[in-house]
Amino acid sequence: MSKVVTFGEIMLRLSTERHLRFSQSKSFALTFGGGEFNVAVSLANFGVPSEVVTCLPQNEIGETALMEIRKRNVSSANVQMVKNSRIGIYFLETGAGTRSSNVLYDRAHSAMANVTSGTFNWREILKDAKWFHWSGITPAISDNAAKECLEAVKVASELGITISTDLNYRSKLWKYGKEPHEVMPELLQYSNIILGDIDTAYFMLGENQINPNYQNLNLLPSLYDKVFKMCPNLKTMATTLRYSVSASHQRIGGILYDGKSIYDADIKEVTPVVDRVGSGDAFMAGLIYGLLSDDISYQKSINMAVASCCLKHTIYGDYNLVSLKDIERFINSDSHGKVSR
Amino acid sequence: MSKVVTFGEIMLRLSTERHLRFSQSKSFALTFGGGEFNVAVSLANFGVPSEVVTCLPQNEIGETALMEIRKRNVSSANVQMVKNSRIGIYFLETGAGTRSSNVLYDRAHSAMANVTSGTFNWREILKDAKWFHWSGITPAISDNAAKECLEAVKVASELGITISTDLNYRSKLWKYGKEPHEVMPELLQYSNIILGDIDTAYFMLGENQINPNYQNLNLLPSLYDKVFKMCPNLKTMATTLRYSVSASHQRIGGILYDGKSIYDADIKEVTPVVDRVGSGDAFMAGLIYGLLSDDISYQKSINMAVASCCLKHTIYGDYNLVSLKDIERFINSDSHGKVSR
Amino acid sequence: MSKVVTFGEIMLRLSTERHLRFSQSKSFALTFGGGEFNVAVSLANFGVPSEVVTCLPQNEIGETALMEIRKRNVSSANVQMVKNSRIGIYFLETGAGTRSSNVLYDRAHSAMANVTSGTFNWREILKDAKWFHWSGITPAISDNAAKECLEAVKVASELGITISTDLNYRSKLWKYGKEPHEVMPELLQYSNIILGDIDTAYFMLGENQINPNYQNLNLLPSLYDKVFKMCPNLKTMATTLRYSVSASHQRIGGILYDGKSIYDADIKEVTPVVDRVGSGDAFMAGLIYGLLSDDISYQKSINMAVASCCLKHTIYGDYNLVSLKDIERFINSDSHGKVSR
Amino acid sequence: MSKVVTFGEIMLRLSTERHLRFSQSKSFALTFGGGEFNVAVSLANFGVPSEVVTCLPQNEIGETALMEIRKRNVSSANVQMVKNSRIGIYFLETGAGTRSSNVLYDRAHSAMANVTSGTFNWREILKDAKWFHWSGITPAISDNAAKECLEAVKVASELGITISTDLNYRSKLWKYGKEPHEVMPELLQYSNIILGDIDTAYFMLGENQINPNYQNLNLLPSLYDKVFKMCPNLKTMATTLRYSVSASHQRIGGILYDGKSIYDADIKEVTPVVDRVGSGDAFMAGLIYGLLSDDISYQKSINMAVASCCLKHTIYGDYNLVSLKDIERFINSDSHGKVSR
Amino acid sequence: MSKVVTFGEIMLRLSTERHLRFSQSKSFALTFGGGEFNVAVSLANFGVPSEVVTCLPQNEIGETALMEIRKRNVSSANVQMVKNSRIGIYFLETGAGTRSSNVLYDRAHSAMANVTSGTFNWREILKDAKWFHWSGITPAISDNAAKECLEAVKVASELGITISTDLNYRSKLWKYGKEPHEVMPELLQYSNIILGDIDTAYFMLGENQINPNYQNLNLLPSLYDKVFKMCPNLKTMATTLRYSVSASHQRIGGILYDGKSIYDADIKEVTPVVDRVGSGDAFMAGLIYGLLSDDISYQKSINMAVASCCLKHTIYGDYNLVSLKDIERFINSDSHGKVSR
Amino acid sequence: MSKVVTFGEIMLRLSTERHLRFSQSKSFALTFGGGEFNVAVSLANFGVPSEVVTCLPQNEIGETALMEIRKRNVSSANVQMVKNSRIGIYFLETGAGTRSSNVLYDRAHSAMANVTSGTFNWREILKDAKWFHWSGITPAISDNAAKECLEAVKVASELGITISTDLNYRSKLWKYGKEPHEVMPELLQYSNIILGDIDTAYFMLGENQINPNYQNLNLLPSLYDKVFKMCPNLKTMATTLRYSVSASHQRIGGILYDGKSIYDADIKEVTPVVDRVGSGDAFMAGLIYGLLSDDISYQKSINMAVASCCLKHTIYGDYNLVSLKDIERFINSDSHGKVSR
Repeated sequence: MSKVVTFGEIMLRLSTERHLRFSQSKSFALTFGGGEFNVAVSLANFGVPSEVVTCLPQNEIGETALMEIRKRNVSSANVQMVKNSRIGIYFLETGAGTRSSNVLYDRAHSAMANVTSGTFNWREILKDAKWFHWSGITPAISDNAAKECLEAVKVASELGITISTDLNYRSKLWKYGKEPHEVMPELLQYSNIILGDIDTAYFMLGENQINPNYQNLNLLPSLYDKVFKMCPNLKTMATTLRYSVSASHQRIGGILYDGKSIYDADIKEVTPVVDRVGSGDAFMAGLIYGLLSDDISYQKSINMAVASCCLKHTIYGDYNLVSLKDIERFINSDSHGKVSR
Repeated sequence: MSKVVTFGEIMLRLSTERHLRFSQSKSFALTFGGGEFNVAVSLANFGVPSEVVTCLPQNEIGETALMEIRKRNVSSANVQMVKNSRIGIYFLETGAGTRSSNVLYDRAHSAMANVTSGTFNWREILKDAKWFHWSGITPAISDNAAKECLEAVKVASELGITISTDLNYRSKLWKYGKEPHEVMPELLQYSNIILGDIDTAYFMLGENQINPNYQNLNLLPSLYDKVFKMCPNLKTMATTLRYSVSASHQRIGGILYDGKSIYDADIKEVTPVVDRVGSGDAFMAGLIYGLLSDDISYQKSINMAVASCCLKHTIYGDYNLVSLKDIERFINSDSHGKVSR
Repeated sequence: MSKVVTFGEIMLRLSTERHLRFSQSKSFALTFGGGEFNVAVSLANFGVPSEVVTCLPQNEIGETALMEIRKRNVSSANVQMVKNSRIGIYFLETGAGTRSSNVLYDRAHSAMANVTSGTFNWREILKDAKWFHWSGITPAISDNAAKECLEAVKVASELGITISTDLNYRSKLWKYGKEPHEVMPELLQYSNIILGDIDTAYFMLGENQINPNYQNLNLLPSLYDKVFKMCPNLKTMATTLRYSVSASHQRIGGILYDGKSIYDADIKEVTPVVDRVGSGDAFMAGLIYGLLSDDISYQKSINMAVASCCLKHTIYGDYNLVSLKDIERFINSDSHGKVSR
Repeated sequence: MSKVVTFGEIMLRLSTERHLRFSQSKSFALTFGGGEFNVAVSLANFGVPSEVVTCLPQNEIGETALMEIRKRNVSSANVQMVKNSRIGIYFLETGAGTRSSNVLYDRAHSAMANVTSGTFNWREILKDAKWFHWSGITPAISDNAAKECLEAVKVASELGITISTDLNYRSKLWKYGKEPHEVMPELLQYSNIILGDIDTAYFMLGENQINPNYQNLNLLPSLYDKVFKMCPNLKTMATTLRYSVSASHQRIGGILYDGKSIYDADIKEVTPVVDRVGSGDAFMAGLIYGLLSDDISYQKSINMAVASCCLKHTIYGDYNLVSLKDIERFINSDSHGKVSR
Repeated sequence: MSKVVTFGEIMLRLSTERHLRFSQSKSFALTFGGGEFNVAVSLANFGVPSEVVTCLPQNEIGETALMEIRKRNVSSANVQMVKNSRIGIYFLETGAGTRSSNVLYDRAHSAMANVTSGTFNWREILKDAKWFHWSGITPAISDNAAKECLEAVKVASELGITISTDLNYRSKLWKYGKEPHEVMPELLQYSNIILGDIDTAYFMLGENQINPNYQNLNLLPSLYDKVFKMCPNLKTMATTLRYSVSASHQRIGGILYDGKSIYDADIKEVTPVVDRVGSGDAFMAGLIYGLLSDDISYQKSINMAVASCCLKHTIYGDYNLVSLKDIERFINSDSHGKVSR
Repeated sequence: MSKVVTFGEIMLRLSTERHLRFSQSKSFALTFGGGEFNVAVSLANFGVPSEVVTCLPQNEIGETALMEIRKRNVSSANVQMVKNSRIGIYFLETGAGTRSSNVLYDRAHSAMANVTSGTFNWREILKDAKWFHWSGITPAISDNAAKECLEAVKVASELGITISTDLNYRSKLWKYGKEPHEVMPELLQYSNIILGDIDTAYFMLGENQINPNYQNLNLLPSLYDKVFKMCPNLKTMATTLRYSVSASHQRIGGILYDGKSIYDADIKEVTPVVDRVGSGDAFMAGLIYGLLSDDISYQKSINMAVASCCLKHTIYGDYNLVSLKDIERFINSDSHGKVSR
């Protein structure tokens, strides 16, 4: 299995502890994360050679991020360490029950937001790759990042590499003067797999907004088809179904459409939530793993995506730390949580 | 909006961490709290100028409590720092699931319990106030505190200030030789708003005990009316409905009666419980906020009280740290816990 | 009430904190535990004089374990401190929700596994005892431990002491070359009370495996009878009913059979789970307490076992730290979790 | 060796962590301690059977203190658990360098301060004892405690038990209306061993104050002799020499006088200081151990006292946790701090 | 005593714990600080009414900083909360022994760096002030901050308010295109009190660099006189003498020159160092306190500055938390670190 | 620069926190370390490609160790993951001042102790290596480990690779039935560089014990020469000079002898000690770095070794985390501990 390359920002995450509010906190827990890096870590844990391409500041914080990449067995061969730069930061206030978690971004002017054209030699980077993954966060950071993403996608497309995209809309980003619909359609032309809500896809593609009923599976194909029409290289589109009972209780399901049929995975109860951040990336990683493997069906792929997403909610930090064995056990068991001893 | 003044003890709270029992603990988390102070903090967070009147010992612990008052934007202009005194303490063993939390009071001989007549110049303190709030904990501490409370209530009444009371019965207090029914009736004469269970009100007023069925709304007016009869200045009485499924799962609703009609708020599921202490005070603060505002209806007021109470359960410590925006979001949303990002 | 003696290994438990996975942990919480010791602590908390017989290494870790025994009011009069030895260790990764907890044993070559014949003078140790308790973990550790257990059981039997056994099957043990059915039948000959699943009992006794339906109470006597037949001294057998909804949510019930009638306790919801380890031992202790007491019925005994087991899930660490009063409150209350203040 | 009995209060100690000031602290580290208990723990660690006689409140905090007594192998056979009482508390702000530690007492009205005559059956308690130890803190707490101390001392004297006293003057105590010189002379009549500064002894005995120069050994006997004259049963008096370079650096020596000769131990450098509290009690315990043993000379006794005191500064909490082997190693070595491996 | 106003940035400080390096850290301790704010807090602790003027982002982190200002009794009446902005951050790796602490700034684009002309109405802000304090950090942040500082200084000068300046050179700042000597001379025209090394003053004023020997007091006046010549309003200049034996051991003294005479304070040993950051600001605050008070001599003023600086090293965080009483005790005592009890 | 390969055990280190004794600890800090791995990490931090060869158990603890190797940029290409095995553990009680740290080994039966012949293909592993490093700990673990070490050394010798050895005598090891002098002479035949005390070398080589005076440099060559005679391939021998003032204060120097001349580095004061463990390995790494580099003199090499050793004492954990820049700064500076900002 040749490598999966992901491209995106790795941030320093500073989160409050034990559900404290910001004004109560005397310390922040320190981790690193970012949508595309999270996917790479998940895949590495599944045994897939993976790499993250990103920019980090050449200082002690950037070097610590680099160590985390190495620790998690993701290749950092093409990570750029940028002088006189800063790392993007996000502050996370962890909610509970009826109080939502709150993310405060402080990522402007980061090494990744200021990426300059030519920083990455994509042809070289992607020459051994089988798959390239990016998400809608990268073009939302800055004009520069959006341009570099387009460059990467074009090269990947030329090289015949499978391209997957997680739409990942963040209302607190897209602050650099462009709207998603001005940027995303061109980028999504090249995508073979898209993960996202139908309404998010429409929004990013500049279509009229709808409010799809995911319970009614029969109506979904026609809604997905519109995306397929606008994205000529699209092969499969998947959607994470998430019902947020509370910050501590989620219901997770998933749908995959291959242009012909709908495959849906059962809704699973997820409670309590140890850490909800990155659970969409875990879904993406489960999906990529399934689609990467010749012997895994679409149905199994969407099941794996849901399993990976559910398990992520039990893992502290941005990225999933579960094995394929954990995924299989989840899928095959009706009862969870027996102590293994 | 002129200020709300509350009168009551602020205690040092020493709680076990991570659900440990006392005998397992190597440290106590340190916070401050007290029913009336908690109400003041909540109101300050809602943007209402608020003040707490209390006695604290003039030592490093008392000064730390004073800093917390200031930090939370509550006026400490009339806090008395008492020499050679002690702060009231309560030890809290935080329960979980079917194991209840346990409060151990060590508040005898505190600066507040030993308050002496004339300590506070109530006419001066209340001259700019619109609202005075006290709870049934103050007269339960000591004879002195009960007398000072009566003094305050009389002055407030003379000045035409709205007076609210949270009945707040604590079986582990009232140890100084008087029963509630010997003290409370006189105090409650002056109350315009009472928060409490009907049976608690009857108990404190010396009436025969009943066991009201709050599901049967039609029967409630006649039960409340008896309280109205005994408390001539009463305008509204409210009751928090609390069903304790477990220490980690509560169901919260509320009822408000204005002498004519019943207004009830829907029962909400509260799980998990980060910290249950002070959730009644949060209810009181939501109620006061609604009743203070000319443009907020009784129905909205009781809804706000329930919302404030529910959200408090997700906040560590004695007092609520939520904004009006958080309250509104809670009231207007069916789904809770989406990450804000 | 004369003393209860238990025999088994006390391990150092090293557990990850705040649901972290091993690879995320920078520290381990340190406690001690072991099935039979856990039973002794529970009983001591119920006011029953109890003692644990075990081997510990004569080093600082062994001495710390010894202090924990003393702290918990369990007699350590016959604990053997062994030179140049090690303590058994188990690493615990605490799960959450759909992710199971994971136990990693590192207990080979421990002081207890290497126990040599004659280490304990059982006739002396048991002379004041009324009850002897052992579990299926002890003979699973090593051949030596199995032999010493047999020695103890024989002496207890001769002395007319009641013998209870928790079958406690651990698939990660029994690594020393013998299968349970080669060892357990002889040991179980002497048991008067057995706690365990019916299928585990059959497995250990070398019977054909079955999958009993515990919902169908009518069918159970005949299944239990087979065990009674093979264990001639058996008076009562009990089974913990555990449905694992998730690592954070368990449903607990219990069944007791006295050779004539079935006594079953209602299923209780247990959520969240603070610590699931040792909840079976808490069940055992509740059961022993009931059966020890002349004035406690079988029905009450199984109710106490379930109550003890449920409450244990709210207690951090291996052993239960609840009082008889806590057990009574649990049994008599429909609503849990009210703050005691 | 028969047992040593000590009599005094055990307090809950709540200390700030990592040198924080009170106003910075979010938690307190929780331990227990008290001068006479500290001596008992030290002696137990040296292998001497020891017991503490005290009153504790019959609540969860009192029970936790009781567990600590048991854990540390000190007999709690005669500890009184008092209903509706409180434990004495002291808050400790741990200094560093040029900033002193600060103790804030909150021990009025404690179970021990309110001890009533007849609580303890001294004749029974002391019947197996060889040694009775009390300190000047006990009569400083309250009139009741002073009276009970006198009762104990009289019985001990009648029974011919050796009586040792640590003068332990605390300026923040003695608040109940009596001065030391009104209480201590009668108590000290019975003492066989006194530990304390010469000026403190004079002060407590109502003598004119002096400022002794401990460097000039020749002048000391005449100063000590005055104490011997006033305390007819005195056999040896010892003084801890403490030079406080900073809160983190102390110099410790000691002097012993037997009515004839001066024995002095070399000054030792103690830096850094992990915890200075209880180091005087550690000195006392070292001294008692030496004087208890027939084969230990006065010179060795004072050396052991100094060694015990120095090592205590490296131990967190109120009481010393070192063995006789640690003491010997300290005395015999010029170089400290080599890793043992 | 009318108020002291300080102007400068308040940063979020994120520091590693227990001397860990960045790459070992799983959490950051969270505090706030900034040179001029630190001075205001120190003065408030000395009982001087003080205020900080600054810009903070209008988000949860900015509001938490605001609460810290209030908690520490510093007026925040003129703090500007800026939308869509960020707080300046500095990461602190706390050294030990021969390993230096390391500061990593991430303060570009902060609310304060982007301050715009007219943000503050200085005439209004300073109308009740007696003293205005700024440091060389403010003009080092950005061109905007330098301009606002000049505006403030001009108004203060017009209003006849005493102006003090701490030169505070930071090599990692001054990155916006101007050198100190291009900006500082104009600003320093207005200063009445300057704190700084002589060589730093020369450097900032564009003079040739020298390497003064502070041991030779006789030579100092002529060196200081040059600064007095270039700063026509200068009345006193002071210098902190700091000898860094190691990150854990500093030697601190101070010199004050009033244009006529040299006043020097003895060198003090400072070890261990709990937190060295902000010790210069503590020096400044001690100096301001002395110079503010009519009855405090120059000699006493420089002694207070040194005492304040020394004590700060024992306090965690950026600002000093000691009282005047602590300062007096330091000055008057030869021995430090006795426990107060 | 081609790679340095080290061979040795990596242990799980469980250390008490904040200088607590074992019996006070509720948690252990978790790190990994081992003499030869520590050297590899140090070298990697200096920019030298390095690799560790070892056996780890194939379980979650072993995998976590593997992640630490990767994080620290040391090659794990030849690490063997062994099924049904355990990791060696050492418990560390961290001393302070006059109380020594205490190491408790629990490493028998570890994956490394049980290494079997043929596990490692040394010819393949070493083919790209320039340097091979082992220490006296490896042959002290078990007969198997000693044999595998000999195999490695022979191959390295054949391939003409430089071989360095740290004698590292541990009295608590060597428990498998052989004495050092039975094993070490053969192994040391191949060493080109030896680090160790002269008396340790004599002891391991079976020579009569001496007590060298390292102050007298003139006498040292003849003492070293004896080792050179017995180790025919020896080119340089170095000795760490360590004077242990206390557990918190060490004095460190070093001596290097090349068969002709003595090169000695000045004694440095090291206080406080954050973590003393692994400081010898840091010395070794500094020495190797110097000797590896053609342009670094013997004098500079021993200076670097001492600098590396001193700085290690300020770093928590087993291995040094400093850069070449840190080393250079240490060597070139008289004053330490200035904040870099």
